[in-house]
Amino acid sequence: MVAEPIDPYNFRSPPMLVVLSGPSGVGKDTLLHRLRDSGLDFAFVVTATTRPCRPGEVHGRDYLFVSKSEFADMIEADELLEFSLVYGDYKGIPKQQVREALASGKDVIMRVDVQGAAKVRKLVPEAITIFVAPESEEELVRRLTERNTESDESLRLRIATAREEMKRAHEFDFIVINRAGQQDAAVAQIVAIIMAEHCRVGRKPVRL
Amino acid sequence: MVAEPIDPYNFRSPPMLVVLSGPSGVGKDTLLHRLRDSGLDFAFVVTATTRPCRPGEVHGRDYLFVSKSEFADMIEADELLEFSLVYGDYKGIPKQQVREALASGKDVIMRVDVQGAAKVRKLVPEAITIFVAPESEEELVRRLTERNTESDESLRLRIATAREEMKRAHEFDFIVINRAGQQDAAVAQIVAIIMAEHCRVGRKPVRL
Repeated sequence: MVAEPIDPYNFRSPPMLVVLSGPSGVGKDTLLHRLRDSGLDFAFVVTATTRPCRPGEVHGRDYLFVSKSEFADMIEADELLEFSLVYGDYKGIPKQQVREALASGKDVIMRVDVQGAAKVRKLVPEAITIFVAPESEEELVRRLTERNTESDESLRLRIATAREEMKRAHEFDFIVINRAGQQDAAVAQIVAIIMAEHCRVGRKPVRL
Repeated sequence: MVAEPIDPYNFRSPPMLVVLSGPSGVGKDTLLHRLRDSGLDFAFVVTATTRPCRPGEVHGRDYLFVSKSEFADMIEADELLEFSLVYGDYKGIPKQQVREALASGKDVIMRVDVQGAAKVRKLVPEAITIFVAPESEEELVRRLTERNTESDESLRLRIATAREEMKRAHEFDFIVINRAGQQDAAVAQIVAIIMAEHCRVGRKPVRL
């Protein structure tokens, strides 16, 4: 409930910043692709990373693949909304990407890891944060194991981290369960959250 | 953000109480019928009223049409969630209807006028309140005039009341614009709000 009366005839909420997070391996990337292909008019923010490009990934679409030196430049210029060192590689969100995306007038969706989401929430309290969870711990481990692009040691580390990340679900505004074989349901829930939040009274514009 | 960690694997929000409100003539009844026919599994609460049954209305579906004496009995037994005297007739929501609907495990949707919604919000802070608005004041007047079931005097009163009701939109959680000829969009927004609120972290069960 907001303090001041509003004009309900001209009710239109400002573009929103939507943070899609969750443990590694839960399927955030695939959901993001599905949202991109859904025909809805979102603007997407591309994360910068120093990790090597995986097969099938495209620079500027999946990530901005940058050198460690370029990444250091962005940190020094305070041009990252959040950044972190994950499994030996740097990842971060260029502020300029978010500003440009919001200026388009579209809702902005970005994928952020659980640690990064906490930072975004502090800097941008107007952001809508969605935690994507698997349906069970077994499924989480299965997904991480199936990816199979890393050594046993880094896989163990990834599983242990994902388990810790799952404990932070309650810090988010929404939880969406991404059940195996039921991605349509998860996509529909994310779309519903965005649609609903546009109807919410008292939503403040994002400032960054 | 809630204080305690939750189990995200078994995340399931409790049945919700959804209040559909808005000025007289905005089309709440039609939206409610559309939601009823949408195939989604809502439970509906039927309002008790002392006003006469209009052509096409069905007792127990559109309203519980009761005598003034029966209505007085319910008030005395404190068995109404809210009630009001509107245009010379009494309307009210039997608490037992809401309890039974919630006990079914389904989400409960009920139509409440703007004054009544304020009362429900106080008694049931967990309720989700949706204000249905027309797209313009001209459209509001047109709808009220087209109904054409009343005297000029009561029409004037209804229009004046509806204008006042529009000023209370900001007291609600959500605003849905019910544009002429675009009811599908309004229904989709209401469904999205309910779907989204089921994903919300920290939702408390309704107590009544």
